[in-house]
Amino acid sequence: MKYSNIHCPTLKEDPASVEVASHRLLLRAGMIRQVASGIYDLLPLGLKVIRKVEAIVREEMNRAGAQEVLMPLVHPAELWQETGRWESNGKELLRFRDRHDRDFCLAPTHEEVVTDLIRKDVRSYKQLPINLYQIQTKFRDEVRPRFGLMRGREFTMKDAYSFDCDEESQMKAYEAMKAAYERIFSRCGLGFRRVHADSGNIGGSRSEEFMVLAKTGEDEIVHCKSCGYSANTEKARTLLNPSTLAKESFESLELVDTPDQKTIDEVVKKLQVHPTETLKVLLYQTEKGPVAAVLPGHRDLSEIAFQRALQAQNLRPLSPEELAQYSQVQFGSIGPMGLKEAIPVLADILFDSTIVEGRRYCVGANQNGKHYVGVQAGIDFAMQAHQVHQIHKAEVGDLCCDCNAPLQIERGIEVGHIFALGTKYSEAMNCNFMDEDGKEKPMVMGCYGIGIGRTAQAAIEQGLDEQGMVLPPAIAPFEVVIDVVKWKDEVLQSKALELYETLREHGYDVLLDDRDQSLGAKLKDADLLGISCRLVVGHKGLENNQIEAKLRWEKEAQWLAPDKIVDWIKSGFEKKQQAFLTADL
Amino acid sequence: MKYSNIHCPTLKEDPASVEVASHRLLLRAGMIRQVASGIYDLLPLGLKVIRKVEAIVREEMNRAGAQEVLMPLVHPAELWQETGRWESNGKELLRFRDRHDRDFCLAPTHEEVVTDLIRKDVRSYKQLPINLYQIQTKFRDEVRPRFGLMRGREFTMKDAYSFDCDEESQMKAYEAMKAAYERIFSRCGLGFRRVHADSGNIGGSRSEEFMVLAKTGEDEIVHCKSCGYSANTEKARTLLNPSTLAKESFESLELVDTPDQKTIDEVVKKLQVHPTETLKVLLYQTEKGPVAAVLPGHRDLSEIAFQRALQAQNLRPLSPEELAQYSQVQFGSIGPMGLKEAIPVLADILFDSTIVEGRRYCVGANQNGKHYVGVQAGIDFAMQAHQVHQIHKAEVGDLCCDCNAPLQIERGIEVGHIFALGTKYSEAMNCNFMDEDGKEKPMVMGCYGIGIGRTAQAAIEQGLDEQGMVLPPAIAPFEVVIDVVKWKDEVLQSKALELYETLREHGYDVLLDDRDQSLGAKLKDADLLGISCRLVVGHKGLENNQIEAKLRWEKEAQWLAPDKIVDWIKSGFEKKQQAFLTADL
Repeated sequence: MKYSNIHCPTLKEDPASVEVASHRLLLRAGMIRQVASGIYDLLPLGLKVIRKVEAIVREEMNRAGAQEVLMPLVHPAELWQETGRWESNGKELLRFRDRHDRDFCLAPTHEEVVTDLIRKDVRSYKQLPINLYQIQTKFRDEVRPRFGLMRGREFTMKDAYSFDCDEESQMKAYEAMKAAYERIFSRCGLGFRRVHADSGNIGGSRSEEFMVLAKTGEDEIVHCKSCGYSANTEKARTLLNPSTLAKESFESLELVDTPDQKTIDEVVKKLQVHPTETLKVLLYQTEKGPVAAVLPGHRDLSEIAFQRALQAQNLRPLSPEELAQYSQVQFGSIGPMGLKEAIPVLADILFDSTIVEGRRYCVGANQNGKHYVGVQAGIDFAMQAHQVHQIHKAEVGDLCCDCNAPLQIERGIEVGHIFALGTKYSEAMNCNFMDEDGKEKPMVMGCYGIGIGRTAQAAIEQGLDEQGMVLPPAIAPFEVVIDVVKWKDEVLQSKALELYETLREHGYDVLLDDRDQSLGAKLKDADLLGISCRLVVGHKGLENNQIEAKLRWEKEAQWLAPDKIVDWIKSGFEKKQQAFLTADL
Repeated sequence: MKYSNIHCPTLKEDPASVEVASHRLLLRAGMIRQVASGIYDLLPLGLKVIRKVEAIVREEMNRAGAQEVLMPLVHPAELWQETGRWESNGKELLRFRDRHDRDFCLAPTHEEVVTDLIRKDVRSYKQLPINLYQIQTKFRDEVRPRFGLMRGREFTMKDAYSFDCDEESQMKAYEAMKAAYERIFSRCGLGFRRVHADSGNIGGSRSEEFMVLAKTGEDEIVHCKSCGYSANTEKARTLLNPSTLAKESFESLELVDTPDQKTIDEVVKKLQVHPTETLKVLLYQTEKGPVAAVLPGHRDLSEIAFQRALQAQNLRPLSPEELAQYSQVQFGSIGPMGLKEAIPVLADILFDSTIVEGRRYCVGANQNGKHYVGVQAGIDFAMQAHQVHQIHKAEVGDLCCDCNAPLQIERGIEVGHIFALGTKYSEAMNCNFMDEDGKEKPMVMGCYGIGIGRTAQAAIEQGLDEQGMVLPPAIAPFEVVIDVVKWKDEVLQSKALELYETLREHGYDVLLDDRDQSLGAKLKDADLLGISCRLVVGHKGLENNQIEAKLRWEKEAQWLAPDKIVDWIKSGFEKKQQAFLTADL
């Protein structure tokens, strides 16, 4: 393709008010333009990258035996009412009425519609298993869309849905999708982890996320280098590392004045104790009433884990005004000893698994302006087994629950998610089949998503430098760009055209920069766009039968004879594909 | 592909309440399922046909120099307000509010968004021309969706938008698109006509429609076999054929009683006159006030032509109650002589071009229960030149305006539409560029649409029989199906597999029907799906080294040696492609 035939309006300046580098680069490279908050145009080269990702996804889904379909974006309310999600979903589900005043929504996901499709035509075990997928437009009315294609409102997803006779068969479908996802992200040239994840409100028993590792990623991942265990920090099961605990400094229970010390930091400073010797109580409101979480003062609460342990639908911090209605004790003085007496309305009290039974702690005394020191966990206050859960967020230094090795924390961008759904949707929607034994049973489902635009942008976020994108060759807008020192020079132009044809014959996706601009400007654009290899044709080189060749991720250019270039590119790309896959892992 | 791996739920029975054959076949063949009125799931084979159409469209658009982009379905109101279409569009434009109470719509077309995209980045004549296209989901909230994919609410369109410096350059883009469309519909194997069309409310100076000919088509087309002139009947310029006029029977003006004769039929019968000797007056309401159309009693009014001639935005028939407010004369007695005096409020009176000046007619007398006979057009009532327009619908027997030959009327399905838009949108949205002469000018635009699902369904509608679809090989779900008399017979199965591999190596898209069903059931499905060639492998034939081969559109099967099959299919497909293109033309 020739550059002059492409609408690729690159920008010299960084666009304003853009939070992440990949979003900035997408705009600067003329790949996307914003139409409204979270809604974008994909320009020719942006779409080209997306289509390369789609092609890989499609090939691997087909290879795994999934069949491509296309379901609509506009869904009738009736189907969503059958599963109760019409009511339970928040404002992310954009609802509206058509001209006949009927309720519809823009679909963020397709469990209801695909289940309806299958129940219409599938009645026998002989027709199962089935796995249907689509690459399709979704809409989610995010309260705060941001990061370009990473968290947009209108976006493209690959979503697949499997239907099986039983759990065993479903697990095969799940494993096949897992393997397909590993191949997809590997072929895209991404460094990623598959991590244990929370199923969230989609339901189901088992789920894993695929995370592209990137320092700026929104998600935190726990990873064990020793055994490979990986999980979302919100879901990770980790063990307390005893070596991180300070030696106990309290010998007996004592009430102390802390008139102005409300926070753990203030208490630690005033009383000269170690943070690992303190406990804090966090209060939340749920549909069951107020609840309390007790954990060591230096640990963060995982609200997701806490909510799951509570089996609550809604969770939000209790306000000081609400607390005042329930108790005379104020925030800053609340502690686990006598907690139920201090706040009788509490529906539940959960203790974090890193609290050491028998250890003496400093805690709020449930009297304003006072703390206890030397309170013994499990002795001075009860911690019944069913009250103890892992509700802390995993941290660097925690130990792996599988192999006891110290864990590391990484950041990632979620690009894929696979779920074992069980019969949640098939039961709600009567999606049944007649089994071999003549009995009617609900189908066992799975669902499997990949954010297409997200994957592309995550690839940009993972590999970039001062000059622009550093994309894996498999999904770069072009694999090779040919630049000419001076386009209007006929000798150079004809050499460039010859090279162009040769590379295309070898199957490379090549851009010929035929613009009458300075070489510097052309090289800047090539680097900005993340084109994997650039070749410069100039008189100086040609005198020695040489072309200047540079891979995007290498510092130095090389001089090569034209007939060596094809092989050189091939081996350079292969090496980089390997390196991309293992980068920072 | 193997049949057992495809979710293709064919139906034995015709689905209820479906109006057109192609819609019925899409359902029966398990290609689509309805989700809501005008909203469909595309199942694997339905999507496969659609993707084949898309691939042809994409190739030809790229070849014509258009660049693929992807714009969103959800548009902010602000852009549509700039062109005034937010207000002027009817309820087909589905409007809604997001969670922040901002106005949005689901896009039925993209002039606003693409113009916004171009004005952001294009400022110089050096960046023009540009032609951007997308294959994308649209939504139009039809009051009465019907005919499956033909008039759905959510549908896939290819829409392209060209931006040029001047009219001359724009015409080149228009001609390039016209040529691309001719190639696209030819490659799809469709019998079609390109016809002059009305630009409707999209605006612009020139437009042509591409119509697939089908007896059940919604649109009427005028076609001249002699010179090739084709036009939508609503827009066609045709001449009166004088030989169709009855000899004049009136010699002088006379008032006659017609107490119970309100319609032309009744008047003709009572007074024993020929319909071509009568004139009728039709009354409409517009935003300018009531208006009248006068035309021969036997001709139909083209409301579109009438509205265009009036330059009115709105047009609807006047009700008897409204007429009673304006005049004492009732419907059935209104005539052109003294019309303005009888209904003083009339804002405009237009006369059809087939009224012959000087000819004597029978007309309403503008006195209840009375008619005049022998009224001379242009003498007893004035017909000023600016009042005479072609407002009749073209009819069989009318003469071609270009070559005077008699015209025929055909029916068609609109699958494509190209428009020269001029500067309507670029002026409204300030989409300007700096020309060579340093002056800022609005870009000259064109837009070009193809209904993807419509094209596929029109192909089905154009070629079908009692057994099912008869699709052109280029867009059939498969080109070849291999059936085996008994699948479980190992000899037959291995022969079938061998044939399958051979055909695939030759680039054919082959279905292997590996279902353990009766041959009859399998052949029924193959015919229903419109697969272009079917091969039956059985012992009887193999004894003589022969395979039974049948093309979908031929009555009889043939016996062929396996090594002849590839060539036989090739020549059969080529012949049919030619025949499809010229069928009924």
